[in-house]
Amino acid sequence: MGEKKTKVVVIGGGTGSFTVLSGLKKHENLDLTAVVSMADEGGSTGKLRDEYGVLPPGDVRQCLVALSETDVLMRELFNFRFSGGSLAGHNLGNILISAAEKMTGNFNDALKVMSTVLHVKGLVLPVTLDKVRLIAELNNGKVIVGETNIAYNHLVSRFGVKKIYFDKKARANPEARKAIKNADLVIVGPGSFYTSLVPNFLVEGISDALYKAKAKKVFVCNLMNKYGQTDNFSVHDFAHGIEKFIKPNTFQYVIHNTRIPSPKLLSKYLDEGEPVVFDKSRVSKYHKFIGVDLVNKRIPKAVSGDAIQRTLIRHDSDKLAAAILSLI
Amino acid sequence: MGEKKTKVVVIGGGTGSFTVLSGLKKHENLDLTAVVSMADEGGSTGKLRDEYGVLPPGDVRQCLVALSETDVLMRELFNFRFSGGSLAGHNLGNILISAAEKMTGNFNDALKVMSTVLHVKGLVLPVTLDKVRLIAELNNGKVIVGETNIAYNHLVSRFGVKKIYFDKKARANPEARKAIKNADLVIVGPGSFYTSLVPNFLVEGISDALYKAKAKKVFVCNLMNKYGQTDNFSVHDFAHGIEKFIKPNTFQYVIHNTRIPSPKLLSKYLDEGEPVVFDKSRVSKYHKFIGVDLVNKRIPKAVSGDAIQRTLIRHDSDKLAAAILSLI
Repeated sequence: MGEKKTKVVVIGGGTGSFTVLSGLKKHENLDLTAVVSMADEGGSTGKLRDEYGVLPPGDVRQCLVALSETDVLMRELFNFRFSGGSLAGHNLGNILISAAEKMTGNFNDALKVMSTVLHVKGLVLPVTLDKVRLIAELNNGKVIVGETNIAYNHLVSRFGVKKIYFDKKARANPEARKAIKNADLVIVGPGSFYTSLVPNFLVEGISDALYKAKAKKVFVCNLMNKYGQTDNFSVHDFAHGIEKFIKPNTFQYVIHNTRIPSPKLLSKYLDEGEPVVFDKSRVSKYHKFIGVDLVNKRIPKAVSGDAIQRTLIRHDSDKLAAAILSLI
Repeated sequence: MGEKKTKVVVIGGGTGSFTVLSGLKKHENLDLTAVVSMADEGGSTGKLRDEYGVLPPGDVRQCLVALSETDVLMRELFNFRFSGGSLAGHNLGNILISAAEKMTGNFNDALKVMSTVLHVKGLVLPVTLDKVRLIAELNNGKVIVGETNIAYNHLVSRFGVKKIYFDKKARANPEARKAIKNADLVIVGPGSFYTSLVPNFLVEGISDALYKAKAKKVFVCNLMNKYGQTDNFSVHDFAHGIEKFIKPNTFQYVIHNTRIPSPKLLSKYLDEGEPVVFDKSRVSKYHKFIGVDLVNKRIPKAVSGDAIQRTLIRHDSDKLAAAILSLI
């Protein structure tokens, strides 16, 4: 009743932000905004980008679903994926977002229409409205073009990323920059380091806006490393690593997991990377490290949305929300 | 305020029912239900039927849009059509309805989800949930299979339809039959005679339900004839023609147009058929003929939905609604 809501901005990609937002959504008095990477170009999203020249809908779709307050059927429909025919592999929500973009001529407007349909509690903002492709230069000198290639190419895993950039200049979506500037709390992560988190800070004006913002700034560390991207990264390495793309000492808080996932879960994951550990020997004057058990113990159900399918070792959205809210 | 609403059921296909429902929607105290033909298999609808084995979404989509109370952007999005790429020709609403059917496994449920999304004022019910194809036997003995072929094949136009039937038995959707049974007013038409109106009465149980219903029954006559289907039909021929598929003297009221469209409009239409005229020399003991100027004088805007594009000579939805409501 007139109580001022805490303005929370979550910066990331699809899957990680889905988890953070799903947990925070259940809490009152939060004014939630997702600032979403526009580097995605896998699967259905990539096909729509190629064929219709639209901005990538996949990651924003996941954020919309996370913040949606419609019934579960509508949210499932938004994540529905056709399995055959000429629509094979396409995700209904992606098709809808792209159609709305074509119709309105504007991605921001498209997301507003979608937000109405899905009764979205909060705002979903693309980090940029410029159409860019992600490029990685590897330590062996080879150049890999495109988010999906960077995420899955075995050379990346073998040689590691030396440098990451866009194919052309990306300017910040003014609404995204404004949301960061006015936030009380900004959360970055979790998410694939080079393909979901870093692309936000390759957009001109975003790093600066975050660094200068008066908000409390929290980095949520991944549970697992990924070969070629974050080999043997500790929690400290993650925090410092992401700050290389922003500014040193941007984050006052680093939330990380303290619970090693069960060997059964790990055995399914170990081909992609090792668990991220907290190295007690390394201290940081600036960062306050908050270690909590963050592992989701429920076995994810097979649902037709990417948020659930990609990783078996995931954050528990409720535990993560509790850790975040302890900072307000 | 507790006032009993008049239960109105509109039986037809896509375009004609769109017009009737659009007009009636603006009036209070009506409880609107559309009972929709399931014979459609043109364009996007046909492709979705072929590839996904779904029921035809096209006609119900138009009825959903007609009864929708969301903002115009959402309705336009539902009618949005992709113009290139692998989604070329597909209509977004059709894709949505088909995805909802695949997901829920039930067309009725799919339409309920869509009705929620579109804030539909009323009910849209498929006349049958059986997947059937329309077959026409022509006067030259040739058999034409499929609604689109029947609607557009030049042989139909040349030789005329002798017999029309489904490839297999179609049972009435119980909800559709119930709506007809409990209606205060049932409206049939306007719509393409063999491809939008008659297919409703080829479904077992629908003719009987309509004939026995206590409702006032109104037939709304087409403005224009169509070669091969209703050659030189007068208003009387239409009323008697449709009753051949129901029972004689089903309709107490026949609403028809009295205004010959302008020569300019006619010149654009005459390759498909002549205006339907009212033949004063023929009387009917049972039918009460209600002649009104029903022609829409506005030039239809080019919108990406079929409802608007197919015919240049259309009923004015407001005039038609007024004529219908004068009977309550």
